[in-house]
Amino acid sequence: MIILAIFKKVLQVKESGVFTKKELRIVRENPITIYINGEEFVTLLCTPTHLKELAVGFLAAEKIITNANDIKEILVDKDKGLIWIELKVYRKIAKATYGKRYLTSGCGKGTVFYHLNDVMDIKPFPVVNKFEVETIFTLVKAVAKKTDEKGETAGGIHKAALVEDNKVQVIKSDVGRHNAVDKVFGSILLQNKEIKADMLITTGRISSEILTKSYAMGVPVVVSLSTPTALSIEIAENLNITVIGYVRGKKANIYSVPERIIL
Amino acid sequence: MIILAIFKKVLQVKESGVFTKKELRIVRENPITIYINGEEFVTLLCTPTHLKELAVGFLAAEKIITNANDIKEILVDKDKGLIWIELKVYRKIAKATYGKRYLTSGCGKGTVFYHLNDVMDIKPFPVVNKFEVETIFTLVKAVAKKTDEKGETAGGIHKAALVEDNKVQVIKSDVGRHNAVDKVFGSILLQNKEIKADMLITTGRISSEILTKSYAMGVPVVVSLSTPTALSIEIAENLNITVIGYVRGKKANIYSVPERIIL
Repeated sequence: MIILAIFKKVLQVKESGVFTKKELRIVRENPITIYINGEEFVTLLCTPTHLKELAVGFLAAEKIITNANDIKEILVDKDKGLIWIELKVYRKIAKATYGKRYLTSGCGKGTVFYHLNDVMDIKPFPVVNKFEVETIFTLVKAVAKKTDEKGETAGGIHKAALVEDNKVQVIKSDVGRHNAVDKVFGSILLQNKEIKADMLITTGRISSEILTKSYAMGVPVVVSLSTPTALSIEIAENLNITVIGYVRGKKANIYSVPERIIL
Repeated sequence: MIILAIFKKVLQVKESGVFTKKELRIVRENPITIYINGEEFVTLLCTPTHLKELAVGFLAAEKIITNANDIKEILVDKDKGLIWIELKVYRKIAKATYGKRYLTSGCGKGTVFYHLNDVMDIKPFPVVNKFEVETIFTLVKAVAKKTDEKGETAGGIHKAALVEDNKVQVIKSDVGRHNAVDKVFGSILLQNKEIKADMLITTGRISSEILTKSYAMGVPVVVSLSTPTALSIEIAENLNITVIGYVRGKKANIYSVPERIIL
């Protein structure tokens, strides 16, 4: 699995005056530019694996597409780091509003959405399924372990996984936490399936963008090995998403909507 | 120092069936939108401290400005998360090319720059000053410690520091590693000083963007508690920047240009 990482000779200092040369695995980070219907849309810095999944997940989370049927064709040029996407219908409004922020009437504090329709039409997720905390511990352990790309680069690679019916459905890796999340969503969409996952597990920090992606994909529980930000908890409370962080062994913090978790 | 974090009651699970409510500090993440001469430029997700420094550092790293004299006025509306900047001269080319990628003649692999002038005119840094590895250990320890904002939120906050003449000149914190780096650069520029720092220390991962910022600010040594990506090492080698990662106590990895380090 050298595609995730390269080998490189590094000077390892063990203490002042004591050093050796050692070959280490270093995680890859490449610029990948996405073109939509001939127009440059965005450049992502990512680990160059599962690029179709990345592009599809990214576009779905950004509401440029709703599912894989919106796409006529995807061409990936790995060497040049280019992805050409031909959409059946390209709603240019999506491009014009990409990355733009919408001031909600609350102003200031309430400003959390990037999509105009989200501001207009927020529908908090109802509490439907509930989850044993013990199951979450087991799932997180499985995600943390399940990797053929660990080794020396472990520190630099993030993983994301989707869980459906208490089973890990898909797991993907990337140098960027957002990209790993986009890849798991894109992977389901490319199979022409609806996303019915109950839970998103990420090794990375939960920032507002992770919550926005989770909301766009209809996933009501977000679990992380790391910590959430204050804004992500605020969004989670508005949308009734359960946020769990700092999962370590049998320990965890539940930051919002604990009603979904059976303790 | 509650501005960096909020307090929030969190449900802490200690093991299945055992849980308590505990008040934890959660790092703040706010959307801050920068307007230049009346036009929306970018929205950053950041910890809302030192916002002037953040904006000035960001604009300098993006080559929108070269120093604080290019700015006529900065107004910060903290509540609404807006920063209004009036530039003496606004080179619109900078906006048109923001975030755009330039394909170098090497293509694919060689594609690392976002600024047209960088692609045209790369000047690797000469080796001038050298640094005792022991000094680097001491500096990193000081940066890791020196914080009035640690405590419960430690996991979610990144720090960046600039070192001049073997002394920490400035240190800033943010939920985002890039923002912390922008804040330290902005802090020097706002004092109407030139950046003469020898070394950038960051608690976060070294990605290509950190290298690009370091290059833009003329800093030849980048030190991290975490790991660099393959692309950042490649850029470092092209620009003759020393990259040191995984600094832990008296251990460190030197990934590029070890000539600057006295072992």
